[in-house]
Amino acid sequence: MFVSDIQYRVRYGDTDQMGFVYYGRYAYFYEIGRVEALRNIGVSYKELEEQGIMMPVWENHSYFLQPAQFDDLLTIKVIVKELPLSKMIFNYEIYKEESMLLHHGESVLVFMNKESKKICRPPKFLIDILRPYFS
Amino acid sequence: MFVSDIQYRVRYGDTDQMGFVYYGRYAYFYEIGRVEALRNIGVSYKELEEQGIMMPVWENHSYFLQPAQFDDLLTIKVIVKELPLSKMIFNYEIYKEESMLLHHGESVLVFMNKESKKICRPPKFLIDILRPYFS
Amino acid sequence: MFVSDIQYRVRYGDTDQMGFVYYGRYAYFYEIGRVEALRNIGVSYKELEEQGIMMPVWENHSYFLQPAQFDDLLTIKVIVKELPLSKMIFNYEIYKEESMLLHHGESVLVFMNKESKKICRPPKFLIDILRPYFS
Amino acid sequence: MFVSDIQYRVRYGDTDQMGFVYYGRYAYFYEIGRVEALRNIGVSYKELEEQGIMMPVWENHSYFLQPAQFDDLLTIKVIVKELPLSKMIFNYEIYKEESMLLHHGESVLVFMNKESKKICRPPKFLIDILRPYFS
Repeated sequence: MFVSDIQYRVRYGDTDQMGFVYYGRYAYFYEIGRVEALRNIGVSYKELEEQGIMMPVWENHSYFLQPAQFDDLLTIKVIVKELPLSKMIFNYEIYKEESMLLHHGESVLVFMNKESKKICRPPKFLIDILRPYFS
Repeated sequence: MFVSDIQYRVRYGDTDQMGFVYYGRYAYFYEIGRVEALRNIGVSYKELEEQGIMMPVWENHSYFLQPAQFDDLLTIKVIVKELPLSKMIFNYEIYKEESMLLHHGESVLVFMNKESKKICRPPKFLIDILRPYFS
Repeated sequence: MFVSDIQYRVRYGDTDQMGFVYYGRYAYFYEIGRVEALRNIGVSYKELEEQGIMMPVWENHSYFLQPAQFDDLLTIKVIVKELPLSKMIFNYEIYKEESMLLHHGESVLVFMNKESKKICRPPKFLIDILRPYFS
Repeated sequence: MFVSDIQYRVRYGDTDQMGFVYYGRYAYFYEIGRVEALRNIGVSYKELEEQGIMMPVWENHSYFLQPAQFDDLLTIKVIVKELPLSKMIFNYEIYKEESMLLHHGESVLVFMNKESKKICRPPKFLIDILRPYFS
């Protein structure tokens, strides 16, 4: 298993007139979590794309337990439970003040060749980096 | 069953550097679909809130089949399959050029008293309007 | 002079916790106005990019007179006062219910070669289409 | 004069299909800069609103010199040159790698009573905190 945490401060532009974070913003929080989780193990998503691999989202699932609000300092926890084969599954837990669970979610991403736009295997270097977390 | 269609033109600000609509924008498309679906049967979500009822999203599920792109004219189809009791479930299908299915999704919304922030029953007038579609 | 109108319905995701449209959303409204203004005279911004010309924004100015709110049906009026030479200037007026001026703004866009990323002259076909409006 | 810096990592959701940060996102960067600049001198914008004062944006001006791109680590510099009387003017400079100026901007905000929605004077405690920076 591979786990990573990043903090995120809720901005005014994230809120809506309910006074809560707009539900569409959570996908953006997930993206921050994913990119920083990869960076934490030495993988730059930007370089991955420069090497011709992109990772579009295939499925996305969100569960809203309690609302996040302006200026909350959130912890976005990212959990990868399985070594990716053709797809990579990210789970998320979003906490307020480190222990109050507000939200959880899951995304399924695929690996895609940037030129051909065809689904492909994850690059070997990524598997080499990830493997130690799953043995 | 209750079905509604609305068209949406993809904007530059909806895209990301993959050249596709950013995956986080689909929640916004769903919102457009929901509000217009309700308006089509004479229900103003704005007035619902003014009467003290809000409808936060409880769960959201998205399935990305093919990417939408800048300037695509999308059809957002909204389907409500069941008369809401404590929650209201919206299904979505997003088409390009009326027949190419790009995306489908589902949201579960709850009814909430705006003052107490407690979950409540749907207002009677809404049930009265919706009931004929489910019998 | 060249003038174009388009209507826009304010969405929940456009609002913030002040209960108004978030100030950062107006740039998006301008983009809708620009693209539809060009479409009205037979110019597709999408095709312009496919032909190797893109139009990044160089300057943007916004004046907020009165707030727009959820579900308002806005009219975005776009005004082009001068035939573009190296840059193209768009003025905007945003109305509620066709006569209440909420907002005005101005953007300066340049023409850029998509490959070289260098600033260039507007394409001849665009000038040919625009010229009759300025004589 | 009062100056404050904050870093911001560009996200995928900030980009558009030009491969640059969408021009409408800069208003969001300004907001981050403003809120963190105030926090740096002990002022919470959230508490300001809880005390009945909100600060809507009156004018916004943006100058795009060079594009920001995905994964860039930006420095948002906020400069306040004058003690606010009825309005507060924020200047921004956005740098890549601390020295390459990509963008500058300016916003004019007003103080508004949250209940009456009328423009008001800045609260005394804010002036007391700001005054030492301008003498």
